[in-house]
Amino acid sequence: MDDSLTRPSSPAGLSCYMAVSQFLGLALIAMTGAWMGQYRGGIAWESSLQFNVHPLCMVIGMVFLQGDALLVYRVFRNETKRSTKILHGLLHAFALVIALVGVIAVFDYHRKKGFADMYSLHSWCGITAFSLYFIQWLMGLSFFLFPGASFSLRSKYKPQHVFFGIFLFILSIATCLLGIMEMLLFNIKATYSSFVPEGILANVLGLLLIVFGLVIGYILTRDEWKRPPLAEELALSMDFKNLTMGESPSSSP
Amino acid sequence: MDDSLTRPSSPAGLSCYMAVSQFLGLALIAMTGAWMGQYRGGIAWESSLQFNVHPLCMVIGMVFLQGDALLVYRVFRNETKRSTKILHGLLHAFALVIALVGVIAVFDYHRKKGFADMYSLHSWCGITAFSLYFIQWLMGLSFFLFPGASFSLRSKYKPQHVFFGIFLFILSIATCLLGIMEMLLFNIKATYSSFVPEGILANVLGLLLIVFGLVIGYILTRDEWKRPPLAEELALSMDFKNLTMGESPSSSP
Repeated sequence: MDDSLTRPSSPAGLSCYMAVSQFLGLALIAMTGAWMGQYRGGIAWESSLQFNVHPLCMVIGMVFLQGDALLVYRVFRNETKRSTKILHGLLHAFALVIALVGVIAVFDYHRKKGFADMYSLHSWCGITAFSLYFIQWLMGLSFFLFPGASFSLRSKYKPQHVFFGIFLFILSIATCLLGIMEMLLFNIKATYSSFVPEGILANVLGLLLIVFGLVIGYILTRDEWKRPPLAEELALSMDFKNLTMGESPSSSP
Repeated sequence: MDDSLTRPSSPAGLSCYMAVSQFLGLALIAMTGAWMGQYRGGIAWESSLQFNVHPLCMVIGMVFLQGDALLVYRVFRNETKRSTKILHGLLHAFALVIALVGVIAVFDYHRKKGFADMYSLHSWCGITAFSLYFIQWLMGLSFFLFPGASFSLRSKYKPQHVFFGIFLFILSIATCLLGIMEMLLFNIKATYSSFVPEGILANVLGLLLIVFGLVIGYILTRDEWKRPPLAEELALSMDFKNLTMGESPSSSP
């Protein structure tokens, strides 16, 4: 059978929102880079510029890549579920590694400078988001990629995985906003109120982070844009339904 | 017919999560009050304590009441749709009035002290959240409470209203987190890093704001906890379906 007949293309609205999300995501990375480059002296590992690695890595890992990992089931809607799952897991893994570099950068910078760690609300939210993100990744891996978990266990865990996935993405963005606020009040507290360019750039970056989250959230919550099951998955699911029809519907607590 | 037969009680899990959300909401207000009372000299309108009205009003209005307004369709699931809608609109109106007092408090305080307005990321997010919240309320009123809008227009707008409602609630919480961060760095920047009690209290308040949002978000997104249509609404909806069955299903763009 002709592939173009069995595999419908993405809905038009979805492609448009996807394009906007990618444009916004790249703009976030460019603006964070511009902020560090233009106003904070640039980026380097072995100097006092090591701190600047932190914002850039967190925006790339915990915002852009995490957001894109959430979208793979909408974009690659006609690929097999297994390959989409692997891409979803890989993008999250990639996000985790880049975020880890960002976390190490700030701890290492604090250690070299003799600054205290983990006292601010930003750091509390950040370490919570990063740890839970890692746990969520491990749980996703064990439930959905390893063959151990049964079909019914996967079905029960899936809504929780999706809910906490979106929650962690929102928490990551909120943590970035706190980081922007903290960085501005540490660096330009005296001039921030006179609308200096650095303050405006960072504020606009904050608003764009929110808009990025809004667009990704919108794409994820449209029912009509959810990945439809492929023909072979539908057949499998019907078989499963027939097999379990005899069970009591109130067997779960 | 016996009322207890036709009106099933709320699902057990929902009641439990509801109780937790209300406990958290009251804890948020108590903690904000304790912060202002214990460490910031208390609250008064006609003095430099006027600023302290701001955090308290915003937490009560934009977080606690806004959150509770989102829950009314889950809690009062057996009341008529019209009375639930009115309660939903009234709670949001009440939230808006209290938040407005909070907004006036901070602008008035800045004016008296000669401080600049609207330069921080917190203020940008706050004014965005408050303005959009007011617009969302006006749109909800005109679409769902005034009789002008048609059934099909309401059905089209409803998912957008729900999505933006949850978005504005999240944005309000994020703005509170930014406010906490800003207030701490303005008041206790020198001692914040030595884990002083005020810093810890405010950080814990920030984490509780996130947990409050998490619990409300969890309640709102459980399909099985959504308000089931009452018998008479179901009949009405079937009538509507029969009336419109002849229309082309692809009539919307």
